[in-house]
Amino acid sequence: MPFHQYFNGEIFPVDTALFKTNDLGLLRGYGLFDFFRTYNGVPFRWDDYWARFENSARLLKLSLPLTKEATSRILADLHALSGEQEVTFRFVLTGGYAPDSVHVVQPNFLIRTEPLPRDNPAGKLKGIKVLPYEYVRDLPEIKSTNYVHMILMADEMERQQASDLLFYKNGEVSELTRSNVFIISGNQLITADRNVLHGITRRVVMELAAPHMQVVERTLTLQELLDADEVFTTSSTKWVMPIVQVGDRQIGDGTAGKQTLFLQGLFEKYVESWGR
Amino acid sequence: MPFHQYFNGEIFPVDTALFKTNDLGLLRGYGLFDFFRTYNGVPFRWDDYWARFENSARLLKLSLPLTKEATSRILADLHALSGEQEVTFRFVLTGGYAPDSVHVVQPNFLIRTEPLPRDNPAGKLKGIKVLPYEYVRDLPEIKSTNYVHMILMADEMERQQASDLLFYKNGEVSELTRSNVFIISGNQLITADRNVLHGITRRVVMELAAPHMQVVERTLTLQELLDADEVFTTSSTKWVMPIVQVGDRQIGDGTAGKQTLFLQGLFEKYVESWGR
Repeated sequence: MPFHQYFNGEIFPVDTALFKTNDLGLLRGYGLFDFFRTYNGVPFRWDDYWARFENSARLLKLSLPLTKEATSRILADLHALSGEQEVTFRFVLTGGYAPDSVHVVQPNFLIRTEPLPRDNPAGKLKGIKVLPYEYVRDLPEIKSTNYVHMILMADEMERQQASDLLFYKNGEVSELTRSNVFIISGNQLITADRNVLHGITRRVVMELAAPHMQVVERTLTLQELLDADEVFTTSSTKWVMPIVQVGDRQIGDGTAGKQTLFLQGLFEKYVESWGR
Repeated sequence: MPFHQYFNGEIFPVDTALFKTNDLGLLRGYGLFDFFRTYNGVPFRWDDYWARFENSARLLKLSLPLTKEATSRILADLHALSGEQEVTFRFVLTGGYAPDSVHVVQPNFLIRTEPLPRDNPAGKLKGIKVLPYEYVRDLPEIKSTNYVHMILMADEMERQQASDLLFYKNGEVSELTRSNVFIISGNQLITADRNVLHGITRRVVMELAAPHMQVVERTLTLQELLDADEVFTTSSTKWVMPIVQVGDRQIGDGTAGKQTLFLQGLFEKYVESWGR
């Protein structure tokens, strides 16, 4: 599988060493990224992903070196080079090489193609366990490259057979390390409205759910979540993933919720027909 | 000036592209660093810097690929290659290349040599202005690579003719973006005891001050700082740098404090005789 990557105007095999060591992403954590995939060979919700990437770049005051159209052509080239029906794309935009290790001169723009991540079909049916973790992301609206807590806690999650961390602060839930969180309470579908990254899967699920239940974005407390009928998380790799346990506490009867599985079904149909 | 860098067992010119693009420092901000210099050709307080670097690595659960002695020999080689009397060394340790972009397999260890940063002799005599900024560093004891706010605010600092940010949260002062902060109140020298990186220059200044004034590490409020007789900041590049203005507020009479300049003099003597 000859996966390739675009870097500042050229295309290279994906394992080529490309970054000089005075990059602000590397030295100062000054970078942002995005991550999305194709369905039926067509980039999923590309307009939404590009808009979010543009917004993150604006908030970090980094100028995008390419237009949407030019980027779109690069995606097509990288996809063709992969020889695969489906790929994922990872965008990384850093502060670039800085002579003084402080000031941005010219951002570095990388687009990697990667194979589809390993799916978790058992988790989708049975649900997953997450650990509550007191933390709120810095600059949460930006898809920055700061994932220190996720990596720091990887061993502990494995030890406790948990799949992810559920971030909360002062009793208020925000998101998981790389995905959004929803609860279902009666006929309401509720998700946090602040301190979250606005996920594209989150948006699609709200669109799909709207004809069937009341969709509410508001402050969400940890206590409400623990007491909810159903809880699930959404991301481009997790789709609609039931959460059945938070630390030692079981959600509902500890099995994937019916309405969650219903929304999961709607999402699966949506992506199966994407681009057709 | 042929500055060089060490990377995972080999030595390269300093502008060689070395990092593959699935490094966890780059993709996930999972990295730490350290930075120190020579005086009279001898690495300054090497024992202290190594101990701090080891501690940061332990807290981030990254194994150090080299012993202190092996690292010491590399410093000597890099120094010799530079042809310079004095150099700075920048250590960077990242989570390394991660096939799944989450789990640490083998850290990447980089040591860059760099020229001495441009000094600010006017600032040392006249003092600098800083902007109060409500923020506390995540995992403050770790010298992590997360400096997003510093870079994000670089333009605003320039606009307000300020040199740095003074971090405070809930009325409590911690540090500047890359340096510690002290106040002098009567015969007391006071510095924050928590949410700070324990600077080596901070430690040296406390040692040098101890025979002359009462040195206190404790919680420090922003109000106390604004009302202090004198304020200064310490780092390996700033030495003892007077702070004479915080936002719109002048400290004391707006000139570098006498005791600050006294401590600055002690520090200068100390580094002038280093290694002799």
